Amino acid sequence: MEKVRVGIIGVYGMAGGMLLKLLSNHKFVDITLLVSDSFPDKNVECLHKSLKNLFPYKTIRYDTAEIIKKCDVVFLAKPHGKFLKKACSLINQAKEKKIKFIDLSADFRLKNANLYPQWYNVTHSDESLLQKAVYGLSEINAEKIKNASLVANPGCYPTCVLLGVAPLFINKFIDPAERVIVDAHCGVSGAGRKLIESNLAMEVEENIKPYKVAVHPHMPEMEQELGYLMQENISVLFVPHVSSFKCGMLITTYLKLRKNIPVEKIDDIYNKFYQDKPFVRLYQGEGYPEIQNIQGTNFCDIKVIFDQKTNTCIVISSIDNLIKGASGQAIQNMNLMCGFDQAEGLPYANILKKRNY
Amino acid sequence: MEKVRVGIIGVYGMAGGMLLKLLSNHKFVDITLLVSDSFPDKNVECLHKSLKNLFPYKTIRYDTAEIIKKCDVVFLAKPHGKFLKKACSLINQAKEKKIKFIDLSADFRLKNANLYPQWYNVTHSDESLLQKAVYGLSEINAEKIKNASLVANPGCYPTCVLLGVAPLFINKFIDPAERVIVDAHCGVSGAGRKLIESNLAMEVEENIKPYKVAVHPHMPEMEQELGYLMQENISVLFVPHVSSFKCGMLITTYLKLRKNIPVEKIDDIYNKFYQDKPFVRLYQGEGYPEIQNIQGTNFCDIKVIFDQKTNTCIVISSIDNLIKGASGQAIQNMNLMCGFDQAEGLPYANILKKRNY
Amino acid sequence: MEKVRVGIIGVYGMAGGMLLKLLSNHKFVDITLLVSDSFPDKNVECLHKSLKNLFPYKTIRYDTAEIIKKCDVVFLAKPHGKFLKKACSLINQAKEKKIKFIDLSADFRLKNANLYPQWYNVTHSDESLLQKAVYGLSEINAEKIKNASLVANPGCYPTCVLLGVAPLFINKFIDPAERVIVDAHCGVSGAGRKLIESNLAMEVEENIKPYKVAVHPHMPEMEQELGYLMQENISVLFVPHVSSFKCGMLITTYLKLRKNIPVEKIDDIYNKFYQDKPFVRLYQGEGYPEIQNIQGTNFCDIKVIFDQKTNTCIVISSIDNLIKGASGQAIQNMNLMCGFDQAEGLPYANILKKRNY
Amino acid sequence: MEKVRVGIIGVYGMAGGMLLKLLSNHKFVDITLLVSDSFPDKNVECLHKSLKNLFPYKTIRYDTAEIIKKCDVVFLAKPHGKFLKKACSLINQAKEKKIKFIDLSADFRLKNANLYPQWYNVTHSDESLLQKAVYGLSEINAEKIKNASLVANPGCYPTCVLLGVAPLFINKFIDPAERVIVDAHCGVSGAGRKLIESNLAMEVEENIKPYKVAVHPHMPEMEQELGYLMQENISVLFVPHVSSFKCGMLITTYLKLRKNIPVEKIDDIYNKFYQDKPFVRLYQGEGYPEIQNIQGTNFCDIKVIFDQKTNTCIVISSIDNLIKGASGQAIQNMNLMCGFDQAEGLPYANILKKRNY
Repeated sequence: MEKVRVGIIGVYGMAGGMLLKLLSNHKFVDITLLVSDSFPDKNVECLHKSLKNLFPYKTIRYDTAEIIKKCDVVFLAKPHGKFLKKACSLINQAKEKKIKFIDLSADFRLKNANLYPQWYNVTHSDESLLQKAVYGLSEINAEKIKNASLVANPGCYPTCVLLGVAPLFINKFIDPAERVIVDAHCGVSGAGRKLIESNLAMEVEENIKPYKVAVHPHMPEMEQELGYLMQENISVLFVPHVSSFKCGMLITTYLKLRKNIPVEKIDDIYNKFYQDKPFVRLYQGEGYPEIQNIQGTNFCDIKVIFDQKTNTCIVISSIDNLIKGASGQAIQNMNLMCGFDQAEGLPYANILKKRNY
Repeated sequence: MEKVRVGIIGVYGMAGGMLLKLLSNHKFVDITLLVSDSFPDKNVECLHKSLKNLFPYKTIRYDTAEIIKKCDVVFLAKPHGKFLKKACSLINQAKEKKIKFIDLSADFRLKNANLYPQWYNVTHSDESLLQKAVYGLSEINAEKIKNASLVANPGCYPTCVLLGVAPLFINKFIDPAERVIVDAHCGVSGAGRKLIESNLAMEVEENIKPYKVAVHPHMPEMEQELGYLMQENISVLFVPHVSSFKCGMLITTYLKLRKNIPVEKIDDIYNKFYQDKPFVRLYQGEGYPEIQNIQGTNFCDIKVIFDQKTNTCIVISSIDNLIKGASGQAIQNMNLMCGFDQAEGLPYANILKKRNY
Repeated sequence: MEKVRVGIIGVYGMAGGMLLKLLSNHKFVDITLLVSDSFPDKNVECLHKSLKNLFPYKTIRYDTAEIIKKCDVVFLAKPHGKFLKKACSLINQAKEKKIKFIDLSADFRLKNANLYPQWYNVTHSDESLLQKAVYGLSEINAEKIKNASLVANPGCYPTCVLLGVAPLFINKFIDPAERVIVDAHCGVSGAGRKLIESNLAMEVEENIKPYKVAVHPHMPEMEQELGYLMQENISVLFVPHVSSFKCGMLITTYLKLRKNIPVEKIDDIYNKFYQDKPFVRLYQGEGYPEIQNIQGTNFCDIKVIFDQKTNTCIVISSIDNLIKGASGQAIQNMNLMCGFDQAEGLPYANILKKRNY
Repeated sequence: MEKVRVGIIGVYGMAGGMLLKLLSNHKFVDITLLVSDSFPDKNVECLHKSLKNLFPYKTIRYDTAEIIKKCDVVFLAKPHGKFLKKACSLINQAKEKKIKFIDLSADFRLKNANLYPQWYNVTHSDESLLQKAVYGLSEINAEKIKNASLVANPGCYPTCVLLGVAPLFINKFIDPAERVIVDAHCGVSGAGRKLIESNLAMEVEENIKPYKVAVHPHMPEMEQELGYLMQENISVLFVPHVSSFKCGMLITTYLKLRKNIPVEKIDDIYNKFYQDKPFVRLYQGEGYPEIQNIQGTNFCDIKVIFDQKTNTCIVISSIDNLIKGASGQAIQNMNLMCGFDQAEGLPYANILKKRNY
């Protein structure tokens, strides 16, 4: 297998750091370019202390020509909206070179450009890129991702929710007239490295902090993708909380079923849907997903409980927000786009690659 | 004000230890008797290291006669079911002496004796005590508690949920045909001091663990009390999680409103309902309840958010499970039963007592 | 007992917030003035969320005349050096009014003014106030504190070390030719509320971070006070670490003994020295001081272990850095200065005050 | 490179679980046998939840013949002393088959059999195996390890201390008449998975707990190996603490230097000593080792500070106790014994293997 030349735009952030850490383990990747406009011309260990002595690379300032010259695959790991115009320009200029782009921000996730001003306080003027971008939920959209040149890597919360409930929506078990309630708890890494009071240890340890209740921008993303899965309009009520740990998230989703659903088939439906997906693990006997079981991995752990009294499915799903919720899924998508085994470079690759799918 | 002589049955547990700690600060209490059958004849600092050098008391084995002789008020702080028969016998024998009992277990909370075998794996044969027991939710049942001789101190989860939603139920804003969804996160102290794997630090730190999903015994307790508030049958779907901290809980409750409810009155309704309740704090502008704001206190912090898109009220409420959810509310109840200021002995008593209610 | 009127200068910081929280419980205090130059004209709950609904007070900007008019006791809780000139001016102006000052910063702790430029990057020009200030280590200097008008409240690390080792120094058990090694671990609250990277949850949780190794400014403070205790020059090697919790510190001090010391008398010496000190707890049988035993209290827990092989005393001492290491000791000092019981207003006051000393 | 067949004896413990996790990533390993006498005939995910769906292996009961038949390399990961007799018997029986053994317990670390009753409460009767065993500190004893058939994998604390100070001892910078003070803080995983009170989350979170002060059995192990390095008798004063996190340790060691040591050469000495050791990272400019920088890796991070005032070297070293302090170093030793690259299978192997040493 030939190696690809990989660039990361925005290597100071947590997603950028995690990309670097995971890619160091990838057999078919040469890291050729690292961009940090905040910390240019630095060794990466100045940006990420734990990477001390590991990489010889220096960061550069953003430079379109350099990127086009040196990269086959580009990860865009900048904050939402901030880089949108430059990203569109870069992607359009790079078209002929067949460079593959994976954007970890929300800049290409929503198909309806009109939603951007409301939810991300930014105007999106490149409709054609929005339509061209493939929503990179690897387990659901693998076939489209394989042929994509631009992948919009999903948000961490939508990844965790969508994987948890997709089989119920695709099989039309859900009553679309009822709201989907998504109660989510995420570690503080979800908020990035910003120097704001809510990220201080004194505000996070031994605490839970609700935030953006019913107004978080991952809500329209969930509604868009759940709508696609069932071909109906879906209303999501999304309540996120910051919890007292560093990495990982656990989400409890409450879904009202249609009447007369054959609930005894739920386990089979999930088994079949995820039978050849190495990164989804189903809990069908005792035990529940827990954050400690997925920390540091690309797994999504899922359990579905049907409560007869209220005709409700409770779906508990858990991912590492920095890996399956960001950099890990981005690499999984790169693997799909480049024809590599989708587990290559990810934790437990050696075991997962042996499997037949 | 004359002092009361107080005994604690079950002083080794977390509730027992917290009772001792809080009561040490109470002006009108003489601790006269401490029972621990697991650690009899020990100084209390052997049971609770942080109480080193503070109390001269020794524990004794359970002894009905001694309790009746030495106590005006008795706190029963034993595990559910284990002490039920002895408790009934003690309470019945103590009737003439007008001893006041506050039971922190679930043994007298459910009015329907038939629920005990199903939810607590124990048979309850003393129907008359069940009917006599007053459900000790201090803010709601204060008048009944004042005259009670037996108070069933509420569970931690029901306390937090009921205080959060009571005004909506009493005002019949809630659609009783819809299930009430209660998503709760509690610190590990909720599980007590038992030597079981799920209480180990390696299982709790940097983790979230769902447990007893839709089958937790606090569910029928919530249904009973919510039913009383609105005089309708109410279905609760309750999902508890153990979170990565020691003390405190935060609950997010989702309630479908009836149609055409004057939602703009919600804030006023809450303000009026809780205007003279020193331990309830309402969040009506910016900010949300957080666990760190209530840790170590008897407060219940509450915020109500109405989501128009889904006609749903989201109620976020937070208490310290060991204080307002157990020992603090027990002392608040003792204060009501004995005619003391209800804040006496509780954190911030000095400030709260100055207020006029 | 008559009430005193109390002002706090610098109420936004952690020490200021803790002063307010503890003083709310003090029987003989009226809070009459709160200064915050960063957040003037705000209710204190804007500065400290957990104090919601508790205090009616508003903050004001710094105003010398107001302070002199409205306060009998003033707590100065500003960062080191930043307020030094204003503090000197205020204290000198207030002389005639017999206002008592307790400064929680380092501005009056070092007797040698020449040390300030080196250790605190500030020039100290008021020699007479430096000499007048009493070092407020309550257990050691109680008699001087009682008559002081200006108390320099000790640093958190020096408080914990000095209480731990004082009896060994006073009894001249220590070899002054050998360095005293102080290995300290403190929670992140020790660094205050500043928005700096090292205070972020991602940098603190599940971590230990050494800092200012052998160059921390509490080192000369320890050397000064240990020198006084034994009337010899003492060299301290001090290594502080930030540990993965919010409050509290635990220090392990290593002391070489002189030859032929009657080490069997150490326990007696400590017992006698601390027999009438309510806030010192000695561990002489099994068990060690632990941070959880002192969190939220004004206690200093101490254990002394003699290692024969190396003729070394290992002293383990632990305090809550925000209470005994700052605001709690400040209130203890106010109590001494005003003739109140020294435990008044502090946790477990009700029990501790009953004791005879 | 040919694969080796690997067995793990004691797969339920933390070291056993980590071996499995790391070996899954090793190119030249076939896991052929897993022994658990506590949980025989179970899939490994019953023993380690986070390994769900990863391995097809079942555990068996201990069976000498099976081990000899199916393994080229055997990891012994049982508690100290408990398995000593069986281990000796197995190793002696396996001699002809040239099976390589790596024992992660203390059973073969001390050369002086007389120390076992005192420090481990067990009698050691196989002197010849004790002498034959190579102390597996990979960076120091690589040459001996390459030819060893029995490696005694070092304790976590000794690994961290010895790597931190070895260059100072080998260069005879240390005054052997002075005691070496080792102040260590380790996460709770150091205590294993035992159901004891001190391992409960309520005892560990937001706490520090000193234990076995000056009587921990890793002390004679350090003294033995430091003594070898300098060919002098060395006295160690070792004080371990359990800190408030799961994995990792940070140790601060205080060493008195001989007089007239050329301290300006210390950095060079360390650079030279560790120049070709991929798992040691030296901090010589700004910054200190921190636990978060080594968590999940096989690195040992080291900083040496010379304090002129006290003629003392302060060495701060940090490792992940479960990896470099146990299973990671065990695999590093297997790699040396089998002729693999020493980084194979360990985190960042892909990068570290590219280096020339």
